[in-house]
Amino acid sequence: MQATETMAGPEHYLSELVRAGLLIPVGVDGLYGRSGDFEDVIEAFNNVITRLGRDDGAEVMRFPPGLNRLHFEQSEYLKSFPQLAGTVHSFMGGECEHHELLRQLAEGEDWTGEQKPTDIVITPAACYPIYPVLAARGALPSGGKLVDVYSYCFRHEPSKDPARMQLFRMREHVRIGSPEEVVAFRETWLERGRMLATELGVPFEVDVANDPFFGRAGRMLAANQRDQNLKFELLIPITSKERPTACMSFNYHQDHFGEIWHMQTAAGTVAHTACVGFGMERVALALFRHHGFDLKAWPESVRKLLWG
Amino acid sequence: MQATETMAGPEHYLSELVRAGLLIPVGVDGLYGRSGDFEDVIEAFNNVITRLGRDDGAEVMRFPPGLNRLHFEQSEYLKSFPQLAGTVHSFMGGECEHHELLRQLAEGEDWTGEQKPTDIVITPAACYPIYPVLAARGALPSGGKLVDVYSYCFRHEPSKDPARMQLFRMREHVRIGSPEEVVAFRETWLERGRMLATELGVPFEVDVANDPFFGRAGRMLAANQRDQNLKFELLIPITSKERPTACMSFNYHQDHFGEIWHMQTAAGTVAHTACVGFGMERVALALFRHHGFDLKAWPESVRKLLWG
Repeated sequence: MQATETMAGPEHYLSELVRAGLLIPVGVDGLYGRSGDFEDVIEAFNNVITRLGRDDGAEVMRFPPGLNRLHFEQSEYLKSFPQLAGTVHSFMGGECEHHELLRQLAEGEDWTGEQKPTDIVITPAACYPIYPVLAARGALPSGGKLVDVYSYCFRHEPSKDPARMQLFRMREHVRIGSPEEVVAFRETWLERGRMLATELGVPFEVDVANDPFFGRAGRMLAANQRDQNLKFELLIPITSKERPTACMSFNYHQDHFGEIWHMQTAAGTVAHTACVGFGMERVALALFRHHGFDLKAWPESVRKLLWG
Repeated sequence: MQATETMAGPEHYLSELVRAGLLIPVGVDGLYGRSGDFEDVIEAFNNVITRLGRDDGAEVMRFPPGLNRLHFEQSEYLKSFPQLAGTVHSFMGGECEHHELLRQLAEGEDWTGEQKPTDIVITPAACYPIYPVLAARGALPSGGKLVDVYSYCFRHEPSKDPARMQLFRMREHVRIGSPEEVVAFRETWLERGRMLATELGVPFEVDVANDPFFGRAGRMLAANQRDQNLKFELLIPITSKERPTACMSFNYHQDHFGEIWHMQTAAGTVAHTACVGFGMERVALALFRHHGFDLKAWPESVRKLLWG
């Protein structure tokens, strides 16, 4: 990692972003509005990813930030990350229950008792909706499959670190195929990620990583994931040089999703999957951190990459 | 309204959209993935709105599809539309509760008992986050304020009508100021809306309308809203000529939000508000309905408007 000046911590950076009007506080840690400038950076970076993968032949799928609860239950997310998921609940009562709800609300009591779970869970990671969709199509075509997804995701981890939002956008390319195909895909994107971060003019490092698995059993899963080099992250210092922030991740799921969804390659073997994920807000926050809050003053090469 | 051929119903149109690959079913009514072509239309139409309002001086704010629950409670949405809202709930237990959750899940029991309400409600309409933000800034500037918002919204109304999704995008321009300022804004956009629909080559009509207020008391609110011409809709036939679909709405809230949030004009009076809202998926569905599923075969004038 390149040397940068000493960094102010997460709360300080958040207050700077708010003062500059780039983030708009709404009273909940990890939930912010974005200014037009902030969105311009997100959109431009998103276009850069599109251009990078243009010749890869990905199928574009765009899902709303909601997942079929049944698919969520089948995904085993609850085994690994129960603390992060967000289920969507609605009022399904009649007039009487409504009167009671309004009375509770007026008197400052808990009014959420009649909120019942709907069929929808907020998307925890952009790729989750695609596996059952692909599985329903039958065996993969020869050469496997590549899918391009982009969505808001939810993780319940309130924090004053602007790089740890509860609702944030994730762009992903997901490769489904033989182990060789998906590992080669991950290598390609690791290389592209390094090139991209270099061109964006930010310090970075790539390191092995693990997901935030829940509980004691989770510690074993995390260690196992690291030992097998299943997850790499491209880290950029945003509010700490010692603890840089994961802005891109490169994940090899082995046959995890293939087994759950019975996805098969054209050869009849269980499909393996890998994905590259871009934390869109984190990349924007890294660019604002290293190039300043005035887009016009950003290095010409970075402006050219982003806006042509 | 222009004459169109007899229309197939909602379920038939949905199955056509799915067969054409424009919508991707995921097993929940009102929740669909979108294809690249579908998204191209949404993005192009969104750009047209941006161009239409370019010289209006709106402040761009982009919020994630989540609202501070406290702001939601204060908004009185629960009084009018309790049945549509979606609260976000998360697991906040420890290892023991997690074991129990996994047991329930494995045995097909209800596992959602430990899901507790978070501080977040899914955004019910794109403009809801902005009022408390503006109120916190103090009195409005002279001439009032114009805000441009765009977000996924949630309404719990599962349906097989593709034009009634549970998660859909709404672009809005919101005017906050004196009654004269906000009424003039609404008139401007009513005229722009008619012009836009004409240029898009779709049959339409503009009519007075009402929101889907809940319960018996809601029927009075709805009648009152119609009597006072507070809500107009631009309706385009999508799956029925007799019951065309509201694709744009033009709403005068009077001092409803101004009173709730204590928003004041520069003159010290209670601010009035109005908004124009575009149902992005509905507009796309109307275009696919009237111009066909092959974007390249759309009328040249429509293609030029959308893609330049």
